[in-house]
Amino acid sequence: MSRLLTTGIRRPTLAVVGATGAVGTVMLQILSQRADIWGEIRLVASPRSAGRKLTVRGQETEVSALSEEVFDGVDIAMFDVPDEVAAKWAPVAAARGVVVVDNSGAFRMEPDVPLVVPEVNPHAVRSRPRGIVANPNCTTLSMIVALGALHSAYGLRELVVSSYQAVSGAGRAGVETLRQQISLVAGTELGTSPGDVRRAVGDNTGPFPEPVALNVVPWAGSPRADGWSSEEMKVRDESRKILGLPKLPVAVTCVRVPVVTTHSLTVHARFQDTVTVGGAREILATAPGVVLFDNPEAGEYPTPADVVGTDPTWVGRVRRALDDPTALELFVCGDNLRKGAALNVAQIAELVAAERH
Amino acid sequence: MSRLLTTGIRRPTLAVVGATGAVGTVMLQILSQRADIWGEIRLVASPRSAGRKLTVRGQETEVSALSEEVFDGVDIAMFDVPDEVAAKWAPVAAARGVVVVDNSGAFRMEPDVPLVVPEVNPHAVRSRPRGIVANPNCTTLSMIVALGALHSAYGLRELVVSSYQAVSGAGRAGVETLRQQISLVAGTELGTSPGDVRRAVGDNTGPFPEPVALNVVPWAGSPRADGWSSEEMKVRDESRKILGLPKLPVAVTCVRVPVVTTHSLTVHARFQDTVTVGGAREILATAPGVVLFDNPEAGEYPTPADVVGTDPTWVGRVRRALDDPTALELFVCGDNLRKGAALNVAQIAELVAAERH
Ligand SMILES: NC(=O)c1ccc[n+]([C@@H]2O[C@H](COP(=O)([O-])OP(=O)(O)OC[C@H]3O[C@@H](n4cnc5c(N)ncnc54)[C@H](OP(=O)(O)O)[C@@H]3O)[C@@H](O)[C@H]2O)c1
Ligand SMILES: NC(=O)c1ccc[n+]([C@@H]2O[C@H](COP(=O)([O-])OP(=O)(O)OC[C@H]3O[C@@H](n4cnc5c(N)ncnc54)[C@H](OP(=O)(O)O)[C@@H]3O)[C@@H](O)[C@H]2O)c1
Repeated sequence: MSRLLTTGIRRPTLAVVGATGAVGTVMLQILSQRADIWGEIRLVASPRSAGRKLTVRGQETEVSALSEEVFDGVDIAMFDVPDEVAAKWAPVAAARGVVVVDNSGAFRMEPDVPLVVPEVNPHAVRSRPRGIVANPNCTTLSMIVALGALHSAYGLRELVVSSYQAVSGAGRAGVETLRQQISLVAGTELGTSPGDVRRAVGDNTGPFPEPVALNVVPWAGSPRADGWSSEEMKVRDESRKILGLPKLPVAVTCVRVPVVTTHSLTVHARFQDTVTVGGAREILATAPGVVLFDNPEAGEYPTPADVVGTDPTWVGRVRRALDDPTALELFVCGDNLRKGAALNVAQIAELVAAERH
Repeated sequence: MSRLLTTGIRRPTLAVVGATGAVGTVMLQILSQRADIWGEIRLVASPRSAGRKLTVRGQETEVSALSEEVFDGVDIAMFDVPDEVAAKWAPVAAARGVVVVDNSGAFRMEPDVPLVVPEVNPHAVRSRPRGIVANPNCTTLSMIVALGALHSAYGLRELVVSSYQAVSGAGRAGVETLRQQISLVAGTELGTSPGDVRRAVGDNTGPFPEPVALNVVPWAGSPRADGWSSEEMKVRDESRKILGLPKLPVAVTCVRVPVVTTHSLTVHARFQDTVTVGGAREILATAPGVVLFDNPEAGEYPTPADVVGTDPTWVGRVRRALDDPTALELFVCGDNLRKGAALNVAQIAELVAAERH
């Protein structure tokens, strides 16, 4: 089935594992939109989805159930499945010679698995002794391209980050939950007395510990030592690994907000050198993968409603700290399903595919 | 009309100016709930509302239009009106011997007007050469009681703050706008492509520059120098004044979220001394006006849906920064119409009234 490039090189065969999920769905759109370098594209999910037909590159394609055989003849496999599924199956695929680009949290902090953001550390992709390349979590990815550009110029010394995370970060179930809750609160006077939203929503909180409609929830992930959440630790650990700054002080608080898709973050970033707003803006305006959208007087700053569905990391509200000439304040938005997940995986897979030339 | 206390002292006459607004409405509830120290309570608003009847302390009371005469015989006046109305009328009332407790931004940073939070700097209320006491803005008030307690113990050295501000911070119009927008997006698939929420909402953005339903908006207030918003400058300037730390480094980013009432903030606070989570928790657990609600493993952290309608400042997610033994991370919630506005005004007015004994 594999198609030939005009150069005569066999186009690589790609498997998309988790093609039916929140990330997988966006992955099929992205594969249909980007320059098409792939030969066969095989779609894979759980046995529940076997036989379903999904469209990619304009063609209806049948979904296969995950199995060892599904990887026969595959060059590169994108994994967009839960951690435990990736933990089990990525090594199985790798053992069959497949290069796995894994979007789960299963391998990101393993020392012999590179964690790659093509705009920041593309070189890291080449060293993958286990045949696995990890994709960062969506919260880190939503800001790291902008921070990488500023780090190259000024030398990052400290980060204080707060997130405004969309519900699709918790998959299809997260989106479904918010939509149901919004319908329950629409047309009411809720949100004015203690627990009224909670009573309206009932047990209908889906993957979230609290109602998300008309609310913000300062928790994402599972408990870690000393009161931290797993999501907060990921932002700290993954930022350090991607930037190559293993001791970077990073303080993070992760908060869920009633937005469907696109994570936002406030960033207080301290650098080695004195910064200027003009200099920072110039860096951000020219950095690949970054859009500077920053003119409050004209009502220009990124918001999820405008950023959703787009590829870049959007940066606005660029200010120098009033009391510290080495620190910048930023507001950053990134589509958590595109750059935050599927797009970055696609970019990594393209880097790997390009090695073959 | 003035009633006598059992001690024989005349109960003070109170005027509530702006009784029909978002803050004024909550003020009438608070006056009905707190220990009743007042003689006559006079309700005042614009001529548009003159003759309307509102209930306070269980009694229907007619609203008067704002005029000089309305202050005759008044001891204390609470002003819950727009800045320009307060700027004009507070001095008029003060000139007639009324002590004005002003909730607007008109006088807060005047050197001869105290800015008072009864749990933090109650003594400041006594020095009011202009007869005006200012109430801080709601974003500052939503966190400052907790910070004041920690500052007393550890000595505050730096703040990095991000807000998650409710729409009622923009008054009745803000609440109405969010409710209309929620109805427009309920039952739809909106929030997944660029501008789809904006198109559904149309011009219906009320006091906000962008849609707030299914969105977060990194802007509150009006533009100030160097890219800062007036709301961000207020948090910095007012925190410094209340805490008596005129040089405190404060970095703030203010963001509007689709919550009806209750502002939330993430706080990264650095102190003179080394801190411990145990010590910080003990201080917060015993501080007047603060509720410590912090056990993530049991799903305990404050959210607006539970905090709305309550008086205290709620604090959760207490962590020591992993890379700095002098810094704490907090998530703080406060009802912006109660402690953030009406309650603090009521407490200040009670302090002033108590001077008469
Ligand atoms: N959502 C985000 O913003 C985001 C961002 C970055 C990374 N991630 C990570 O990406 C992964 C997928 O997330 P998601 O949000 O797309 O989740 P999701 O919407 O719940 O989708 C899960 C996908 O995994 C498949 N799957 C589940 N169990 C399986 C099994 N035993 N065998 C084979 N396939 C199985 C599902 O197939 P069926 O439809 O057949 O059940 C579905 O395709 C997760 O590791 C997540 O942490 C997500
Ligand atoms: N909302 C908050 O969270 C919050 C928190 C802290 C401080 N504040 C401040 O508190 C003040 C009131 O805010 P709000 O949110 O309650 O606003 P709001 O809902 O818009 O109410 C405004 C009030 O002011 C009255 N008013 C307007 N123009 C007037 C005039 N020319 N003469 C007399 N009365 C007039 C209105 O009376 P009519 O009904 O007759 O128009 C109404 O009672 C503002 O300065 C605001 O910045 C608000």
